[in-house]
Amino acid sequence: MDEAPMTTEKKCDENCDACASAHQCSLPKALAQKAKIDVKHVILVLSGKGGVGKSTVSVNLAYALANHGRKVGLLDLDLHGPDIPKMLGLEGRRVVVYGQGMEPVRVTENLAAMSMAFILPDTTSPVIWRGPMKMSAIKQFLNQVNWGPLDYLVVDLPPGTGDEALTIAQYAPNVKGAVIVTTPQDVAVMDAVKAAKFVEKLKVPVLGIIENMSGMVCPHCGETIDVFSRGGGKKAAVDLGVPYLGAIPLDPEMVKAGDEGKPMILQHTGSLTSKAVDVVMENLVKQVESTGISPPGQGGM
Amino acid sequence: MDEAPMTTEKKCDENCDACASAHQCSLPKALAQKAKIDVKHVILVLSGKGGVGKSTVSVNLAYALANHGRKVGLLDLDLHGPDIPKMLGLEGRRVVVYGQGMEPVRVTENLAAMSMAFILPDTTSPVIWRGPMKMSAIKQFLNQVNWGPLDYLVVDLPPGTGDEALTIAQYAPNVKGAVIVTTPQDVAVMDAVKAAKFVEKLKVPVLGIIENMSGMVCPHCGETIDVFSRGGGKKAAVDLGVPYLGAIPLDPEMVKAGDEGKPMILQHTGSLTSKAVDVVMENLVKQVESTGISPPGQGGM
Repeated sequence: MDEAPMTTEKKCDENCDACASAHQCSLPKALAQKAKIDVKHVILVLSGKGGVGKSTVSVNLAYALANHGRKVGLLDLDLHGPDIPKMLGLEGRRVVVYGQGMEPVRVTENLAAMSMAFILPDTTSPVIWRGPMKMSAIKQFLNQVNWGPLDYLVVDLPPGTGDEALTIAQYAPNVKGAVIVTTPQDVAVMDAVKAAKFVEKLKVPVLGIIENMSGMVCPHCGETIDVFSRGGGKKAAVDLGVPYLGAIPLDPEMVKAGDEGKPMILQHTGSLTSKAVDVVMENLVKQVESTGISPPGQGGM
Repeated sequence: MDEAPMTTEKKCDENCDACASAHQCSLPKALAQKAKIDVKHVILVLSGKGGVGKSTVSVNLAYALANHGRKVGLLDLDLHGPDIPKMLGLEGRRVVVYGQGMEPVRVTENLAAMSMAFILPDTTSPVIWRGPMKMSAIKQFLNQVNWGPLDYLVVDLPPGTGDEALTIAQYAPNVKGAVIVTTPQDVAVMDAVKAAKFVEKLKVPVLGIIENMSGMVCPHCGETIDVFSRGGGKKAAVDLGVPYLGAIPLDPEMVKAGDEGKPMILQHTGSLTSKAVDVVMENLVKQVESTGISPPGQGGM
């Protein structure tokens, strides 16, 4: 069918086993076979609009969980713009490939990361892939990376509700829920609501909404500037009846932290932003752990 | 092939006619058949990273060209997060469908727009589509929309170098070039360079780079704040040897203009931002028209 009708969903009898299009379908059960990865909980970090801070949240959440003694994997699924390595200060690192497998890059004792950027020849090479190639790569990131036993796999997604988000939601085992990141302005919130509805359709719980770039304190005069407006994320959470995890201000220090590979959660600068990140991450860890996995010997909440 | 090897390009003999995978290939010539749309020049607006202002640039550029007396179509290809209608103040409008065709939404006498948002039942419905469905939709936006004869089709793309960007670059006729939008911080510039290399591989000229959210003037004290750093876009343009089209500051007024559907270029507030938008758009119009299409009777440069 060269030019399919423009409907958001195709009619089907939900008999995926007999359907030739199951591999490109959006039904939660379409991909019945799950990836072979030993992980207790998979957490998706997504947004509708791009540039709202998904990767920043993913990196800080992964560290927060690792700091609580959990074994954490951080999977960067922004295949076209894999920024996680730079934000972890691991630019230029490469994965070790052995036989059919790959060793992820170890960040700390409890934290390992995987990203397209660890595979590409250099930081300027574009990944020019259509959906099927992306699906194949995501399967390999789950099946052929030697993650070891994980408590959590935090998955940083590209914006939107296409191949990457669909594939991971359908193919990963034990998907615990999704964190939705938004900035407060209308156009971003509108897309965040779309992301929440997408997650709902895939039968994945929304762990909560984070409002990022929520106001900014002028470093010169100390007055507050509502650059991207304010309160949109909180309102969306209330409207959707999902947890609101808090707001993180826009802060040039946070942008710099990302560029320099030193996540805010490790900095403890005592600044408003640093405190806000700590509070939001603790809220998120509480949500994530609310149904409980047994606390590890070396720590816990 | 369920799990293809992770290489950025597949080996091929470039004989697309004999290749069963031509429809999912990234070679410029893979889609030899071009869309049936009467347009002199197609301009792609893209970025590596999301949230850098592609849609803002697309809307302002479309108005700028229309103000120069050109017949302009504005095509929103962010299928998952179609924000163009809201930014044009046309939220809630729907396309008229007749037989096999669709009427675009008229914005001014010289400007018509098309977006997924004009087709969806409401603003919260997510578009849960994999690549092949997106490819099909894009073909329909070119073939089955009654654009009429156009001087320019401005195409607003989602971030990244996947299905949407590949399809439009391969399938649209007369692709004149691509405008790359970036914010100045390292992680955004890194992805902008990837976008430029992508465009190069598709044999599309880079019309120039715009540095958006480049510094901000505090509305309280008037001091400049380098929220997302500064100069990264200009440096990337110099390094890549492509035109630098100028910088637009970060400005809450511009964010508000987007949310309220009143593009900055129409506002003439006399503010620094308003002037910067005018200058960048004039630079861009000059680049776009540099190989010359004959000036229309009702105006021109």
